[in-house]
Amino acid sequence: MRMVKLAERPVGMVKASDFSIEDASTPEPSKGEFRVKVEYISIDPAMRPWMNDVPSYIPPVQLGEVMRALASGTVEASNHPDFKEGDAVSGMFGVQTHAISDGKGVTKLDLSIAPLERWIAGLGMPGMTAYFGLFNVAHPKKGEAVVISAASGAVGSLVGQMAKINGCRVVGIAGGPEKCNAVMEMGFDACVDYRADNLAEDLGAACPDGIDIYWENVGGEISDTVFQQMNLFGRIAVCGLISFYNATKPPVGPVNTRFILGKRLRVQGFIVFDYTDRYQEAVDEMGKWLSQGKLKMREDVREGGVDAFADVLNLLYTGGNNGKLVLKTIKAPCAGQTSH
Amino acid sequence: MRMVKLAERPVGMVKASDFSIEDASTPEPSKGEFRVKVEYISIDPAMRPWMNDVPSYIPPVQLGEVMRALASGTVEASNHPDFKEGDAVSGMFGVQTHAISDGKGVTKLDLSIAPLERWIAGLGMPGMTAYFGLFNVAHPKKGEAVVISAASGAVGSLVGQMAKINGCRVVGIAGGPEKCNAVMEMGFDACVDYRADNLAEDLGAACPDGIDIYWENVGGEISDTVFQQMNLFGRIAVCGLISFYNATKPPVGPVNTRFILGKRLRVQGFIVFDYTDRYQEAVDEMGKWLSQGKLKMREDVREGGVDAFADVLNLLYTGGNNGKLVLKTIKAPCAGQTSH
Repeated sequence: MRMVKLAERPVGMVKASDFSIEDASTPEPSKGEFRVKVEYISIDPAMRPWMNDVPSYIPPVQLGEVMRALASGTVEASNHPDFKEGDAVSGMFGVQTHAISDGKGVTKLDLSIAPLERWIAGLGMPGMTAYFGLFNVAHPKKGEAVVISAASGAVGSLVGQMAKINGCRVVGIAGGPEKCNAVMEMGFDACVDYRADNLAEDLGAACPDGIDIYWENVGGEISDTVFQQMNLFGRIAVCGLISFYNATKPPVGPVNTRFILGKRLRVQGFIVFDYTDRYQEAVDEMGKWLSQGKLKMREDVREGGVDAFADVLNLLYTGGNNGKLVLKTIKAPCAGQTSH
Repeated sequence: MRMVKLAERPVGMVKASDFSIEDASTPEPSKGEFRVKVEYISIDPAMRPWMNDVPSYIPPVQLGEVMRALASGTVEASNHPDFKEGDAVSGMFGVQTHAISDGKGVTKLDLSIAPLERWIAGLGMPGMTAYFGLFNVAHPKKGEAVVISAASGAVGSLVGQMAKINGCRVVGIAGGPEKCNAVMEMGFDACVDYRADNLAEDLGAACPDGIDIYWENVGGEISDTVFQQMNLFGRIAVCGLISFYNATKPPVGPVNTRFILGKRLRVQGFIVFDYTDRYQEAVDEMGKWLSQGKLKMREDVREGGVDAFADVLNLLYTGGNNGKLVLKTIKAPCAGQTSH
């Protein structure tokens, strides 16, 4: 088996040298355990802050530890009563080709609903994030204007589609014409390209009646611009702050609290792990919309095996991905992007 | 009658020359109107932002207009069916000695419960602000740690007392030993003097289990320090941002959204005017606590008549008041601070 361990605390964007790639003999599961052949690894923006040695909602990855990651794969050996050889599963298996698990936090996957890679994408952590953040934090009402940053990303594209299903007007913010096209293909009402350097005006034109809900994925200048166009009693669901994740100093900027006060905004942070008890509800609902053709999901599957982890992760911060970024652990002769 | 009109848009703190003081003959009420002899004027932090020509929750005071103010007084002439001579009333009568009203937004006051000045203080706008912000925005639970900035102020002192009634541990932040003493006299569990320049440590000592609720009255460095000590799922009720009100540039500072995300905070702005329909509920409840001796209210009544408006307003921003600041319109031979 092959493992990617955190070797150094990265400063700014990760470098290949921040990780050590190690081979070891594949271990056998003890009683009450099973071994997973890891096939797909979810590459998520939150991975970068997990590497910082600062207290957060989850302990930092320790030096010498296998890099934390959500992944999916197949049980290939089991001494666990509830998991048998051939079961498709997802869990926090890490950036490695094989993992031993005691079953805690592991979900069995129904491959008749979706393939392995989608269970760590639209029907996995990003899908859960979109679902619970939208319906439990943002509380969209029919007819409201919803603005979503990083709209072409794994979470953003789902939030927008589900807000549309809920009767909202949905406007994405994305970087570059290609991503904006992808956002429009997901059925958004409009998409604003922040790289066109005219965000305030373009957003104003796309949201002539102001913004009722802002889905915060980025922070920074985009966020500051949106805050100024929020409507009274608007809601801001703080899902991620990708513009901060490689920062080497605490970010500084305009203090938006004055808009929170004057406009009576409600700004609320949330973490998908707070909703683990309720994942099945989201899977059922989203699975239904998926089968009805109301929800489109797109994965951007990268080859290169676990060795490619650092390079593939950085795509998230440079905007190099298109759809949910997934790393395939096994190099295949022919592959690429899957789009459904 | 004597009126204080806005003559210039102030830059930074107000100056006497930003206002023109004018005398006019006292007008007679038309049909459906009545005339109020204004006796007490509420001096509130929000008055300063009302003078800025920027869109907010309430239109800016226009140049040449009487300065907006909540006030209380006595009806002295009436052509209105619902108000008669001698009625004690409060409303947005402005910084002037007499006002004509059509009764909209005017409340009749029961002087057997509290005197005129208290109906624009603890039982007026500041009291309503404290009540609805605490119970409808902050949602205190028994045993939670509540931190209140500007704790000796009109709103802060009531928030703290009501949080205590609700079973919380209540910690104030105030400037200087005298104000901290006043806060402790209101029954707070602790008060931290931010002028001692050791806020992070002092606050940590006063809240050893972290902070569940922060009542935001100030913004700036105090706010940044508190955000860092918030507990998971903490709530921040944004009531005021006094440190910004005289700023000549939009304030800049550390971006606290990263704490909102990691700690799943809920930050919510509110304005007392959103609850006008429900004021009676607060008056009933707070009146009950007042009569039971559970709630202490303190007004800091200043003499000098309407001419003193600019100087008295600035006391709020320099920390010169102690208790709810009220301006008496009529100069009396003997007066001062009333404390009950």
